[in-house]
Parts: sequence; C-alpha cells; structure tokens
Amino acid sequence: MTKSGKLYVVGIGPGSYEDMTIRAIKALEESEVIVGYTVYIDLIKEHFPDKEMLTTPMRKEQERCLLAIEEAKKGKTAAMVCSGDSGVYGMSGLILEMARSEEDLEIQIIPGVTAALSGGAVLGAPLGHDFAVISLSDLLTPMELIEDRLRASAQADMVICLYNPSSKKRADYLKRACEIVMEYKNQSTICGLVKNIGREEEVMAVMTLEELRDTQTDMFTTVYIGNSMTKMINGRMVTPRGYKNV
Amino acid sequence: MTKSGKLYVVGIGPGSYEDMTIRAIKALEESEVIVGYTVYIDLIKEHFPDKEMLTTPMRKEQERCLLAIEEAKKGKTAAMVCSGDSGVYGMSGLILEMARSEEDLEIQIIPGVTAALSGGAVLGAPLGHDFAVISLSDLLTPMELIEDRLRASAQADMVICLYNPSSKKRADYLKRACEIVMEYKNQSTICGLVKNIGREEEVMAVMTLEELRDTQTDMFTTVYIGNSMTKMINGRMVTPRGYKNV
Repeated sequence: MTKSGKLYVVGIGPGSYEDMTIRAIKALEESEVIVGYTVYIDLIKEHFPDKEMLTTPMRKEQERCLLAIEEAKKGKTAAMVCSGDSGVYGMSGLILEMARSEEDLEIQIIPGVTAALSGGAVLGAPLGHDFAVISLSDLLTPMELIEDRLRASAQADMVICLYNPSSKKRADYLKRACEIVMEYKNQSTICGLVKNIGREEEVMAVMTLEELRDTQTDMFTTVYIGNSMTKMINGRMVTPRGYKNV
Repeated sequence: MTKSGKLYVVGIGPGSYEDMTIRAIKALEESEVIVGYTVYIDLIKEHFPDKEMLTTPMRKEQERCLLAIEEAKKGKTAAMVCSGDSGVYGMSGLILEMARSEEDLEIQIIPGVTAALSGGAVLGAPLGHDFAVISLSDLLTPMELIEDRLRASAQADMVICLYNPSSKKRADYLKRACEIVMEYKNQSTICGLVKNIGREEEVMAVMTLEELRDTQTDMFTTVYIGNSMTKMINGRMVTPRGYKNV
C-alpha cells in the first residue's frame, strides 16, 4: 500500500514573490519538495531556500506531473508550481487526470493571478466587460478551432485576451489572428499588449488593431483586443463596465 | 492647486485574507483610507484595524469611486477595494475614467484572484482550455448582446464561466442561458458551480448541462459550462489542455 501524501498545485502569479497569495506561500512553505518548469522554479527558489526543488524542461508536462505525484506518493507534502493560475492553461487538470486512481493522495488546487489579470492591471482595465481567453498555440488544438473562437468572440464584440500570441515557429500567428478579428471589429479598435509582466523588463503598449497586426510579439507577451466601447485614457486601455450610461 | 495623492485600486480575491496577494496587502497597509462596498470592507477590516474605512452600498459605484478619488485628491494615500480582481467587472475602469483629468493623482491597479479562478480551483480545473467570461446581468448590457455571446462561445466549443447567473429579479436567467447554450452543446456537457467561494458556507457541485438548467443559483454563485472534452474525475470538473493526445 502506498503511503498517503499531499499534493498542492499552486498558481504563483506572474513571477514576483509579491504577486503570490498568502495561501500559495503557505502551501509552498508547508511542502517538502517543489516541482516545476525550470524558469518558474528560478523565480521563486530564493524565497524557499530549504526546499528540495525538482525541475523539468519546457513541454515535459507529463513527466513533471508524474514527478510531483511520485513524490507525494512517498508520503511527502509536494507542490507543483505553475506560472499565473494553476488552472488556466495550467497543470491542475493534468494532475487530476494522472492521479485519478491515487485514492490515498490529497490534491489541493490553489489559484493564482493569471496573465490576463496581471497584464490587464498594467494596461489599465481592458477586461472590464465580458471577455474570451484564447491561446494561439496549435500544439494541442486544431488551428481551425482556434480561428472559429477568434471569429465567434469578435462577432459577439467580446474583449479578447490572447495567450501564446507567437513563438519562433509561429511568427505570423498574431498577424493572422488580427486579420480574422478585423473581419468583424473596426481596425481602430483599441488593443494592448504587455511583455514580461511583473518582471524587470516589463513593457506595455496601447495601440489600434491595425497597428497590433503589424507588431511582433513573443511567447512572453499577453495581447488584448478591445470591444467596441474600449478606449484609450491617458495612455491606458479601458473597457467600460457596460453599454448603457450609468 | 490640488495636492498630489495616490490611489490604489485593489483586487482582494474571493474574500479571505489568505487569498490576497502580498502586493494587495502592502497597498492596503500603505493606505490611510480604504473605500469599498460594505460587504467587502467587512471581509477585510479586522486585518487593517488602524485604517479609516469608508463604505457605500451596492450599485453606488460612481459615488464610491468619487469618494476614493476625493480622498486621494486631499493628498492622502487611498485604496478602493474590489472583490476578486480590480479589473474583471471591477472598479479600475470607472476610476480611470472618472479621474482622467486628475493629473496630480497617481493611480495604481493591483490585480486579484477573480471568481473564475478561485471557483475553478474549488471545482478542479474547469478552465484548462480557452474560455469566455460572461456576466448575465443586463443592468448595463442589452440582453440580446449577452445572448449573442452565449451563442458564439457555445458554438465555438469554449468553456463558459458565468458571473451574476441570477438574482431575485432575474430568477430565470440561468435557465434561459442554459437553453441557449444547449442549442450548440450536448445536454450531457459537464458543468459546475461554486457558491460563496472561499467563505465558510462554500458549496460546490458538478453536474450536466441539463441538470444545471434546472438548478437555482444566486448572485454569490459562479457557474461553469464545460467544452466537449470536459470530464468529471472523482467528483471534480476537469477540462483537458487540448484536443490532441499529448
């Protein structure tokens, strides 16, 4: 029989210690071993110097989850860290799937500030009304479905927040997404982007949809496409709370 | 000439002190006066006993923002608190609009864990893939537009997270929303709801879309409608990270 252990899946927010919740910090303090993608472990390790840290490279999500589950099965308290939230494109779903038969394991999911929110605060208030969060990565999702979602969200005048807008292999994906959205939204729609949220090299910009189409981004950028009411106020991107005057 | 002041707009998360970020706590500790809706002030006041607290009732958002801006204009450091995130259906947009001419005022937006994320963690991992966040409140938004957004999101197989699913005046709104979604999604689609997230009376349930249609909710409930891949695993709601096998 396996010993019963405890596994936390922890959203650490955009990266700095200050953006973690008290609950996330307590879970990591309680853990004996912390598992994560190398980059995220590097962001937090100085604040948890006594912990055993286990890292796996990018894209090795299944190995990473298995590692965390195996540690917890030894009877330890383990934590799997995710950047942003633990659930939004995070590891909590994979952990729950892979540990579905581990009845002795207590799994606790701890949310965190996902990039849509942390980047939104940098830009102003882009997500003040209904919005869609869409990843442009087609690694696990057919491109046609991603395009359907862009069309649907644009047609219904929702604010759109894009994760993974491009990478080296997908350099023109954001351009293509903007072209699709421009079939429904005005080219002067207010948009914004934030790069390296919460880190020293943080950069933000507010621009039109037409300008966004011709902008190069990378995998550390979060992109926002406004609705028809979104405006620029003192250089910030603001989506009002509704369509009627209050 | 007005004195220059500082105004924080702070997302406090679902309600308990532990769900606040360090950054949010520091901003409130630095503030001389904290402004907010009575219910949110009650949630935090014991942790900030030395602060002047100013409250306004529900729906008095403009008065509340004006109060916070006026305090900061006196040269004070003031904070406006919002439940969840400061931006997602929060006050940051209204503050930026109302203070657009206050050049001497420094406004800093601090994000927080919005209900979509905190409720998601309670349910498991409902938001593991692309999703739409839609409020069913038609106070400031035409009902036809809300229905368009439900249709668009359902048609593109996005997970849908509903805020404000019903209230006393809008008792049948969730039922109507489910009926619209069922035009595109299977009635056996896995759904979930969380009531009183992060509070003592927290309740969660996972069910089918058909069952959700016939469920009564209130304004303290957050509702999740899965995509075609969403499953129930050990009583939790899990949306996989994609459509292809990893």
